[in-house]
Amino acid sequence: MTTEHPVAADREQAVTDRVLASFDGAADPRLREVMRSLVRHLHAFAREVRLSEAEWEGAMGFLARAGRITDERRQEFVMLSDVLGLSMLTVAVNEHGAPGATEATVLGPFFAEDAPEVPLGGDLGRGAAGPPCFVSGQVRSLDGTPVGGARLDVWGADADGFYDVQYAGDRSAGRGRPATDPDGRYRFWTVLPAAYPIPCDGPVGDLLAAAGRRPMRPAHLHFRAAAPGHRTLVTHVFVAGDPYLADDVVFGVRDSLVVDAEHHPAGPAPDGTHRPTPWTSIAFDLVLVPDDRS
Amino acid sequence: MTTEHPVAADREQAVTDRVLASFDGAADPRLREVMRSLVRHLHAFAREVRLSEAEWEGAMGFLARAGRITDERRQEFVMLSDVLGLSMLTVAVNEHGAPGATEATVLGPFFAEDAPEVPLGGDLGRGAAGPPCFVSGQVRSLDGTPVGGARLDVWGADADGFYDVQYAGDRSAGRGRPATDPDGRYRFWTVLPAAYPIPCDGPVGDLLAAAGRRPMRPAHLHFRAAAPGHRTLVTHVFVAGDPYLADDVVFGVRDSLVVDAEHHPAGPAPDGTHRPTPWTSIAFDLVLVPDDRS
Ligand SMILES: [Fe+2]
Ligand SMILES: [Fe+2]
Repeated sequence: MTTEHPVAADREQAVTDRVLASFDGAADPRLREVMRSLVRHLHAFAREVRLSEAEWEGAMGFLARAGRITDERRQEFVMLSDVLGLSMLTVAVNEHGAPGATEATVLGPFFAEDAPEVPLGGDLGRGAAGPPCFVSGQVRSLDGTPVGGARLDVWGADADGFYDVQYAGDRSAGRGRPATDPDGRYRFWTVLPAAYPIPCDGPVGDLLAAAGRRPMRPAHLHFRAAAPGHRTLVTHVFVAGDPYLADDVVFGVRDSLVVDAEHHPAGPAPDGTHRPTPWTSIAFDLVLVPDDRS
Repeated sequence: MTTEHPVAADREQAVTDRVLASFDGAADPRLREVMRSLVRHLHAFAREVRLSEAEWEGAMGFLARAGRITDERRQEFVMLSDVLGLSMLTVAVNEHGAPGATEATVLGPFFAEDAPEVPLGGDLGRGAAGPPCFVSGQVRSLDGTPVGGARLDVWGADADGFYDVQYAGDRSAGRGRPATDPDGRYRFWTVLPAAYPIPCDGPVGDLLAAAGRRPMRPAHLHFRAAAPGHRTLVTHVFVAGDPYLADDVVFGVRDSLVVDAEHHPAGPAPDGTHRPTPWTSIAFDLVLVPDDRS
């Protein structure tokens, strides 16, 4: 069903051929390869669906609106990539796939550089609303060796389903950078993350609505783990039992990343503190792949 | 060269399959068709080039920058579509292709709605810099019948290669809406358009530079022609002899649209006026396709 008419097919192929040739002079062979592949697939799409001029105009308007709503704190293009599965596909394409390594998932649009460092056992919730949650685990290398001095970035939504960057002002909460001790262990307090809708007041929200897709992400805490000699891992820990685990709008769930959040009454906690209210806990180990494994 | 490893291939295909299925519930079957095709081709691209995470981040940054520079007067996403040939391909996909009909080309990023109407023989240059140019012709239907009352939108770059909308302020010059007389004839004065570089101070300019592509468009005047009972035509007239005719950065040149600009000394012009300085002329007929020809 690409084209009905051989003259039209020739006319269309001639455009594609000219565009492909225009990238022949790129100094960087990788840029040439990527752009030529992008052009071939983009053109194949437009020809296959017989893209109308009104649809092309709609696409231009969509991108301009996405641009208008994007700023330091709102990443509409990342969300677009996420809901089209391009983000998760890129994760899959780049995954080492070593058996036993912690699986990766999407970065998402709410990562922020330079989050505050958090001491061992410290609180990175810093005022975020929600049930206290004690998160702990060990970072190991693929051969089981503990990785001391690993630097984690952790960020999560509060009980209302919002990240700090979604609030007005310069709020920073539910986000921080713990490190592992010499035995590879980490622990910190935060709040139990809640399931949340991705922001729907822009063009990505309109697309999801038109497609009849729910905008929900199941409850999760984001981790980025960096350690010398290892590939940096971007992943989540998901909370078991969440109703959206099978229906994640960004396709990020992997079974190996779903763990139970345990619920505890007020009383003593594993870090020796006495909790005046009920609290929860999550245990999550991370296994990193050494750099030299290609 | 899509994937080296069957496990990786399965993992990647599983992502694509989940994303395709997510559009099954779209109420509009056309949206479902377009989005499923887009996802298949976008994912095939990412798998084919083994898109790295750094490249994905680069793409997100590119789109955010394009968004930041886009406003009412600067259409970076239209330029991106233009330099990737998507605009010209969309024109080709939608072209009727009736022999004898004027060929179409890209709209470009400099069209503006609600340009001023221009009386027969009037001046739409309105202060734009450049040699005076008398443009005239006839609008006919495919069977040769003159089309009276056709409404033209005409816009062109000045001698410095800029459109009015590229200047600060609310300048409107080199742009207007002439109409045809009962015999289908139109005529107006403007300035002879010059070849120009598309704006290169944004991410599209960086892409062209990295690809070793010249950002030039050969000299042309844009036309949009609308008449009752006919398909609206978007096209250009190109000036013969331009050095960039074989190297148009947006792939818009078609041989049938290239015409001579005649050069005349100061003296009498065809509209009965006496020109105090040398002037030029372009003759360009437009043949429209009736609406009922599918
Ligand atoms: Fe998240
Ligand atoms: Fe132009």
